[in-house]
Amino acid sequence: MADQTLNEVSTPDTYIYAFHEGAELSKELLGGKGAVLAQMTSFGLPVPPGFTVTTQACSAYLERGAMPTGFWEAFDAQLKKLEEKMGKGFGSDSNPLLVSVRSGAAISMPGMMDTVLNLGLNDSTVEALAHKTGNPRFCWDAYRRFVQMYGNVVLGIDHHAFESLLEDVKASSNKQLDTQLDEAELRELVRRYKQVVQEKTRLPFPDSPREQMEKAIIAVFSSWNNKRAITYRKIHKITGLLGTAVTIQSMVFGNMGESSGTGVAFTRNPSNGEKEFYGEFLINAQGEDVVAGIRTPQKIDELERLMPTIYAQLVEIKETLEKRYRNMQDIEFTVEEGRLYILQTRNGKRTAAAAVRIATEMVSEGLISRDEAILQVDALQLNQLLHPCLPADHGGQVLTKGLPASPGAAVGVVTFSPEEAYELSEKGRRVILVRRETSPEDIQGMYAAQGILTSTGGMTSHAAVVCRGMGKPCIAGCASLKIDYPNQQLNIDGRVIEAGEVITLDGTTGEVILGEIELAPPVLNSHFKELMGWVDERRDLRVRTNADCSEDAGKAREFGAEGIGLCRTEHMFFQDDRISKIREMILAKNEEGRRKALSKLLPLQKADFKELFNVMDGFPVTIRLLDPPLHEFIPTTPEQMGEMAKLMEISTEELTQTAAMLHEVNPMLGHRGCRLAMTYPEITEMQVQAIVEAAIEVRKSGVKVIPEIEVPFVGMATELKMMRQLIQKVVSRYAEALGDLQVKIGTMIELPRACLTADEIAPHADFFSFGTNDLTQMTFGMSRDDAGKFLPHYLENAVTETDPTETIDRQGVGRLMQICVDLARQEKPELEMGICGEHGGDPRSVEFCHLIGLDYVSCSPYRVPIAKVAAAQAAIRHPRTTPTA
Amino acid sequence: MADQTLNEVSTPDTYIYAFHEGAELSKELLGGKGAVLAQMTSFGLPVPPGFTVTTQACSAYLERGAMPTGFWEAFDAQLKKLEEKMGKGFGSDSNPLLVSVRSGAAISMPGMMDTVLNLGLNDSTVEALAHKTGNPRFCWDAYRRFVQMYGNVVLGIDHHAFESLLEDVKASSNKQLDTQLDEAELRELVRRYKQVVQEKTRLPFPDSPREQMEKAIIAVFSSWNNKRAITYRKIHKITGLLGTAVTIQSMVFGNMGESSGTGVAFTRNPSNGEKEFYGEFLINAQGEDVVAGIRTPQKIDELERLMPTIYAQLVEIKETLEKRYRNMQDIEFTVEEGRLYILQTRNGKRTAAAAVRIATEMVSEGLISRDEAILQVDALQLNQLLHPCLPADHGGQVLTKGLPASPGAAVGVVTFSPEEAYELSEKGRRVILVRRETSPEDIQGMYAAQGILTSTGGMTSHAAVVCRGMGKPCIAGCASLKIDYPNQQLNIDGRVIEAGEVITLDGTTGEVILGEIELAPPVLNSHFKELMGWVDERRDLRVRTNADCSEDAGKAREFGAEGIGLCRTEHMFFQDDRISKIREMILAKNEEGRRKALSKLLPLQKADFKELFNVMDGFPVTIRLLDPPLHEFIPTTPEQMGEMAKLMEISTEELTQTAAMLHEVNPMLGHRGCRLAMTYPEITEMQVQAIVEAAIEVRKSGVKVIPEIEVPFVGMATELKMMRQLIQKVVSRYAEALGDLQVKIGTMIELPRACLTADEIAPHADFFSFGTNDLTQMTFGMSRDDAGKFLPHYLENAVTETDPTETIDRQGVGRLMQICVDLARQEKPELEMGICGEHGGDPRSVEFCHLIGLDYVSCSPYRVPIAKVAAAQAAIRHPRTTPTA
Repeated sequence: MADQTLNEVSTPDTYIYAFHEGAELSKELLGGKGAVLAQMTSFGLPVPPGFTVTTQACSAYLERGAMPTGFWEAFDAQLKKLEEKMGKGFGSDSNPLLVSVRSGAAISMPGMMDTVLNLGLNDSTVEALAHKTGNPRFCWDAYRRFVQMYGNVVLGIDHHAFESLLEDVKASSNKQLDTQLDEAELRELVRRYKQVVQEKTRLPFPDSPREQMEKAIIAVFSSWNNKRAITYRKIHKITGLLGTAVTIQSMVFGNMGESSGTGVAFTRNPSNGEKEFYGEFLINAQGEDVVAGIRTPQKIDELERLMPTIYAQLVEIKETLEKRYRNMQDIEFTVEEGRLYILQTRNGKRTAAAAVRIATEMVSEGLISRDEAILQVDALQLNQLLHPCLPADHGGQVLTKGLPASPGAAVGVVTFSPEEAYELSEKGRRVILVRRETSPEDIQGMYAAQGILTSTGGMTSHAAVVCRGMGKPCIAGCASLKIDYPNQQLNIDGRVIEAGEVITLDGTTGEVILGEIELAPPVLNSHFKELMGWVDERRDLRVRTNADCSEDAGKAREFGAEGIGLCRTEHMFFQDDRISKIREMILAKNEEGRRKALSKLLPLQKADFKELFNVMDGFPVTIRLLDPPLHEFIPTTPEQMGEMAKLMEISTEELTQTAAMLHEVNPMLGHRGCRLAMTYPEITEMQVQAIVEAAIEVRKSGVKVIPEIEVPFVGMATELKMMRQLIQKVVSRYAEALGDLQVKIGTMIELPRACLTADEIAPHADFFSFGTNDLTQMTFGMSRDDAGKFLPHYLENAVTETDPTETIDRQGVGRLMQICVDLARQEKPELEMGICGEHGGDPRSVEFCHLIGLDYVSCSPYRVPIAKVAAAQAAIRHPRTTPTA
Repeated sequence: MADQTLNEVSTPDTYIYAFHEGAELSKELLGGKGAVLAQMTSFGLPVPPGFTVTTQACSAYLERGAMPTGFWEAFDAQLKKLEEKMGKGFGSDSNPLLVSVRSGAAISMPGMMDTVLNLGLNDSTVEALAHKTGNPRFCWDAYRRFVQMYGNVVLGIDHHAFESLLEDVKASSNKQLDTQLDEAELRELVRRYKQVVQEKTRLPFPDSPREQMEKAIIAVFSSWNNKRAITYRKIHKITGLLGTAVTIQSMVFGNMGESSGTGVAFTRNPSNGEKEFYGEFLINAQGEDVVAGIRTPQKIDELERLMPTIYAQLVEIKETLEKRYRNMQDIEFTVEEGRLYILQTRNGKRTAAAAVRIATEMVSEGLISRDEAILQVDALQLNQLLHPCLPADHGGQVLTKGLPASPGAAVGVVTFSPEEAYELSEKGRRVILVRRETSPEDIQGMYAAQGILTSTGGMTSHAAVVCRGMGKPCIAGCASLKIDYPNQQLNIDGRVIEAGEVITLDGTTGEVILGEIELAPPVLNSHFKELMGWVDERRDLRVRTNADCSEDAGKAREFGAEGIGLCRTEHMFFQDDRISKIREMILAKNEEGRRKALSKLLPLQKADFKELFNVMDGFPVTIRLLDPPLHEFIPTTPEQMGEMAKLMEISTEELTQTAAMLHEVNPMLGHRGCRLAMTYPEITEMQVQAIVEAAIEVRKSGVKVIPEIEVPFVGMATELKMMRQLIQKVVSRYAEALGDLQVKIGTMIELPRACLTADEIAPHADFFSFGTNDLTQMTFGMSRDDAGKFLPHYLENAVTETDPTETIDRQGVGRLMQICVDLARQEKPELEMGICGEHGGDPRSVEFCHLIGLDYVSCSPYRVPIAKVAAAQAAIRHPRTTPTA
C-alpha cells in the first residue's frame, strides 16, 4: 500500500519535511517519531521545533552507499529555517542551536536504533552557550554527554570506556552522583573522553557541528542494518520497511536546574490497565536518565505537588492524546526552566491483562468501538494471561522484592549473561536472566529467558518495557540484589545464589523466590470474558484444539475450543501399558498375530475415545488414524532392546533384525500414514471399531457425539477412495446401532501432491484438514529434526525473514493451500476445510487461514483464545463479503 | 478424446455392431480385433462373419456387476442375423453354428485376455455337425477342445487337469500325436473332461449353447481385471481404457483335414526388418496350435508349394493390408477345406532393429512419410540397439542352438520359475528364465529376467512375441534342451546345468553359451543413422546427457548428446584417491582446516572438468555443486570406521562422534544442496575455482567451452541470490583470463517451493533444470529408498497405475512444473529450462517436457537416442506453434 507512494521518484526537497509540514504524511515516510511530532505540532501541543529526513532518504543511502545528489543542499535550507524559527545558529559562537538526532522507523523499535543528543556542541559553542545561559556547569555536562553518546553511537566506541572515566572522576573527587560533578570536573571529563576517541579511532573528535551532523545521520541510517536491529525485526516479524527516518529536533533540557526535569508517563497503568495517570520523572535530568534506569525516578503524582501547573497541563495533554490516538499513550516530556515540552507519544506497551482491561474500558467510556478494542489487543501476548501463575499460598522462601515490572510467573536457573541464557535455552533449559540492567544488545538473551530480574532501573526501564512487550515476567530495580559478574553469583542480604541455582519470579508482586514453585492455572477475569464475547461474535473461523487426552481437551473447552481438530491416536500408544501391545502387533509374524495384538489395544483406544467424546459433547472430534512409521515404537538403546526382547519372549537378535527391517532412510517420507493402513488394513479396522463403538456407547448417556475419522498422509485420490471403502465397511457393521449418528471421513492435507490434486481427492472426503507441519517440511524439503544445522544460520543471515515452521510461508506453502482450496471448492463447494498444524495458533497464520476461506483452525489448548482473537482481527481487517487483495 | 463419445448414454442396440456395420467405428469402442475385422470386411477380404460387443458394454458390466437392461434381447437379434447370413442355427440340431468368443481391447494385449473357440457345441449339436460334415472325428476333436478351453477360461479350471487326461488317453492307446486320436478316444476324452468339470465346479458342464455364450462373454469381461491383465497394462503403461470388447465370429476350421490349415505371417521379417513374407503354418491344425508352440510349424514359403493358389491370394492380401494400415502387419489366417479366411491382422511386433529398418525402407518405398516413420518406432524399444551385444569372437563354449526369437545378448543365472526370477532380480541378480514354454501367467518373471530360453515353440510362440515386445533376448524351440523342473536342472546332450549356474544367450544367433561372456558395444547401422537424421530435424527439445566422467560423456556424444545436463560433482569425490581428502575436509575443526583439505581436492576436480569440457567441445556442460549431506562420505561399518580413523590419525571415538553429529533423521530433507554451500562457502569457492580454471585452460587448446554452474536444492530466492554473489565473487577473480567466456549460473528446480516461487528465483538464474527425482519425492512425500515397503503393493493393487519415479506424474509433479514454467517465463521469457531427473530418458516424460515448453532434456548416455525419438514424436503429435490440449 505504502510502497506505491514510497517508491515514486523523489526530489531532494521531498526527502525532508519540517514538523509543521508533515501532519498528513505517513509514518512509513517520516518514521513513527517524525510523524507523531508533526501530528502533535498540528494539535497545538508544545513540541520543540524540528524536521524529519524521510525513510526514502535512508533507503536511497543504503542502496547507493551515499546520499542522493542535492540532499545536503536541501538539508541546509531546512536547517536554516529551523535556525530562523529558533532565533539561534547551528554552530553559532554567540547563540548556538543544539539538536537531537533520532532514528524512527514506521514501527516503534524501542532502544533498538541509535540517538544522539546535544549535537552542535564543540569547544567554542559550549562556551557561547555557557555565556548565554549563565550555567557553564550544565553546558559542560551537556557537552560530556554529547561526546559520550556521539563516541558510542556514531564512532562505535564501547560506552564502558566512557563510563569508567566517569567513575574515575567521581571517585577521585569523592562524589556519588553525576549531578554533583562541577564544571571543572566536567571539563576534565570532556578532555579525557576526547582522548579516548583519539585513541580508539586514531582521529580527533570532530569539532565541526556540520561534520557531526552528517556523520550522525549516516550512523542512524547505517544502524538500520546492525545486528540488534535485524534481530529485533526478526523477533517481531517486522518486514517490508524502507528503513529509518531521522528526526532533527531542537534540544530542550531537563537538566537546567531544579525548575527543569524530564519524565515518561502512560495515560493508563500499563501493568494492570487501571485508568490512572502513571509515570515517573526526574528533576534536573535528561530523558535518557529515566529510560536507562540509572537513577531511580519519582512517581508522577509527586509532580502535582512539585510543579502543579505543569502537572495540570500534562493531564490535559494526556486526555487530548488518548482521544486523538484512540489508544493508551506512552508520553515523553521535558520541563525546561518551568516550561513543558512534549517530546514524543506512542501507543504504550502494556501487559496482556492491561491490554484487555484498557480495550474493554475504552469501549465502556465510548472512546473506541468494539472492533477497535479487538484490534488493540496483541493476540500472541494473551499467552501471558493463559499460562500458569504463582498460587497465592505457594509457601516458597521469598528472598527479596523488587518492582513488579511485568506480570506473570517464571521459574528457571539463574544466569548472568544473555549469551549463556540463549545457549541454555537452546538446550531446553528454563533460564532466569539476572542483570544489573539490560540493554538492547541483550535482546536475544532476554527473548530466550523465562523471566528477567534486574537490580537497578524502574518500571519504564529497558528491561521492564521489553519484557512487557514480550509478555515475559520481569522484576526490576531490585535494589537489595548485589550482582557479582566475575564470580557468577548474586548476593541478597548476605545470602549467595550461584549461577545455575533455580529461582522463581513473580512479576505480578515483584517477589523473588528460592527454588522452583509449582505454578497454578490462570484465572480469566471479566474484562477477558467480555472481550472474548465480542471476539466470538466477530470471527468467521471456528477454533478447535489439538488434544490427545481428556485433560487437554477439558482445558481447551475452558478456553472456548469448539471441538477437537486433531487427536493423534499414536500418542495414546506411547503410554506405558500400551506400548508393549503395539510392539507385539509390530513383531507379529502375520496378519493373524497382528489381529490378536490389536484386539488387546481395542478396549484401551475405545476408552480413550469415550473420554474425548464426553468432554466434547456437542462438538466435533477429529480422530486421525495411526500416522508414524512403526519403527518409532521400537526402542533404540541396547538396554531397552534387551528388556523388550525379554518381555516379548524373543531373542534380542530377532528383535534387532525386525527393528533393522523397519528402519527407514527417510522415515518422514516412508511407510507411514495411510500407507501403513493400505498395507496393514487390520490396524485401521481396529481403530475404526474403537471409534464407532465409543461413539455409540457415549451417545447412550445423552451426549452429542460428532466423530470424524481422518486419514493421514494421502497423496493420491485412490488412497482415500480405498481407505474410505475400508472404513465404511467397518462402520456399516454398526449401521443399526449408529442410526442417524453420522461418521464423517476426511483426510489430512499434508503433501504437496494432495494440494495439487485436491479436485480428485475431494469427492472422497467429507472434510480436509491441512497438516501444515508436514506440508511445510515437504514444500521446503526441510526436516524439522535436521533444520537445526542450517535454519538458525538462515535466520541470522536474513536468508529467510520468518521461520516457516512458526508462521505459514504464504508464498510457497500458502500458495499450495490456496490451490488446494480452489480445486476442492470447485469440485465440492460444501467441503469443510480447516488446519491442524501448529500454525493454527499463530496469529499471522490464522489471518492467512481466514483469507483463503477456511472454516476452522485447530491449535494447542493454550492457544485457543489467541487463535480466536487473531481470527476476529482478521475478520475485521478483511471482511469475507468483499474479495481479499 | 475418445472418452467424450464413449461416455455418452448408450441404448442396448449400440452395444453391438456386426462387422459390416463397424468399419468407421473406433477401436476404443470395438477393441482392436473387432475394429480390424470390421475394416477388413470393408476392404473385401475373406473374413468369417460375426459381430462385436463393445467396450462400453464391458465397462457397464464391470461397474454394475450385471449387463445393462435390454442387452440380451439386442444380442439375440444380432445372433439371429448372423444365423441367417451363415444359413446355420446356433444350437441347431441339424446345421449348428459354431462361434469363437474373443476378447479385444483398444490396445493389443497378446495372450493376456481370454478366448473360447467352437462355442455352440454340446452332445446334440456335435452329432448334427458330425452328420453334416461326415467327419465325426473332427467334430469330437473340436468338442473336446471346446470343453477344455471353456473349462479353463470360463470355469477357471487349471489346464493341466485336462492335459494330463489327454496324455493318459494317448498313452493308453499308445499314440504320439493328438491328431492320431480316433473318434472313440475323443468321445471318451470329452466324457472325462466333463467329469473333471463336475468334480471341480460341483456342477455339470453347461449344455445349453445360450448359457455357454452368456458365461463366456461375462468371463471375457471379468478377465479385464484379472491379475495377468493388470500386470500387462502396468508393464506396458496402458491406462484410460474402458475395458475389453468381445468379438463373436463364426468358426472356420483349419483342422478339417489335409486341405485345411492355419498360420500366422508377418508382412516383413519382424526380427531384422527385411522385406520378405515371413511366417509359419500347420496343416490340419487350429490357430492356437501355432501360437502355443506345441507342434513345430512349417515355414510360410512351403505353403507356396503345398497350396499355390492360397499362397498367391495371401501375398496379395498382405500387400493390401500393408498399404491400408501403412505399417508392417501380423496376419492370422485359416484355410478350411481349400478356402482362405483372414482371422486377424495387426501391426506386427518387431525388434528395434527391424522397426528402424522397416520404418526407413517404407519411406524409401514411398509408402509412408518420414513423420510416420518416426512415429512407427517405439522409442523405449531402441534400448535393444543401444545396449551391448556378444562380440563375434567371444570364444565361449556354445552348448546348443535354438531359434533366434528375439535378438540381443543376455547373461544371467539359470532359473526355472518365474517367481524365483522375479525374486532374484529384486535382489539385483541377473537371471535367465528357462522354461519348456512360457504362458501369460509368467509375465512378471519374464519381465524380471535378462533373457528367456525355451525348449519348445517357434518364432511366433508366446515367449518369442513377448520378448520381442520387451526388447529382451529370447531363444525359443531349443529342442536339445531337456528341462527337469523337480530337480532344477537342464540337460543339453548329456551336459547338466544346475539352477544358479551362469549362461549367456545370443538372441541374434540362437546360441546358448556356458558362463559369462563379456558383451561388446553396439554398432549402429545406416538405417538407424538415417532415422536419427530425420528425428534431429523434427524435434524441438535438445537432448543432453547426465555424465560425471569423460567415458560416459564420450559414449553420450557418440549417441548424439548435445551437452551435459547434469554432472554430479560428488560422484567424483567417491573415487578411491579422493574420498580420504573429502573426509579430511569434513573432519576439519574449522574453516582453515577445511580450506586446507579442499586445496588438495582442487587439482583433482579441475582435471575432471577439463576432460568433460574437452569431450563436450562446443556444447554446454552443467556442473552441479556438491549436493548430498556430508555424512554420506563417512563410512558406516565399524571396520571401515576404524580404518578411516587410522588414516585420519584420530581416535575411533572422535570419528564416531563426528559421524553421529552429522547424522540426520531425514537426510533427504536435511543439510544438503545449497544449504551446505551457504554454511560452508569454502566448498563452493573451491568448486567454482576448479570449474573456471579448467574452462580457461581447456579453451587455450582451441576447444569451445560452455560452462554452466548449477546450484542444487534451492527453495528460496535469497538462497540463489546469495549463492550467485558467492560464485560471481570467485569468477570475477578470473575476469581477465576469462575474457568473453561466459560462466552461466543457474539452479536445479527440485523443491515444490522452488516451483511455487519461480518468479522470485528466476531473476537470479541464467537457467533452470528440473531435478524431477527429488521433486517427485517431495511432492509425494515418498523416499525412493523407503518406497519399497509400499510402492509394489500400490502398483499391484492399482492404487497408482504408473510408478512416478519412472514416468513424470503429470497431475501432481507435472502441475508444479507447469506452474514453475509459467511463473519463470512471465518474469524472464528467455530463461533456459530443462530437466535432468531420470525421467529425461522416459518417452512419456519427454513428451510432457515438450508439452510444457522446456528447452532440453538430459538423460543417461544410453537413453539419448530414445529421448531424441520421443522428442521428435512429441513434436509431430503436438506441434509447438499450436496450443496443446
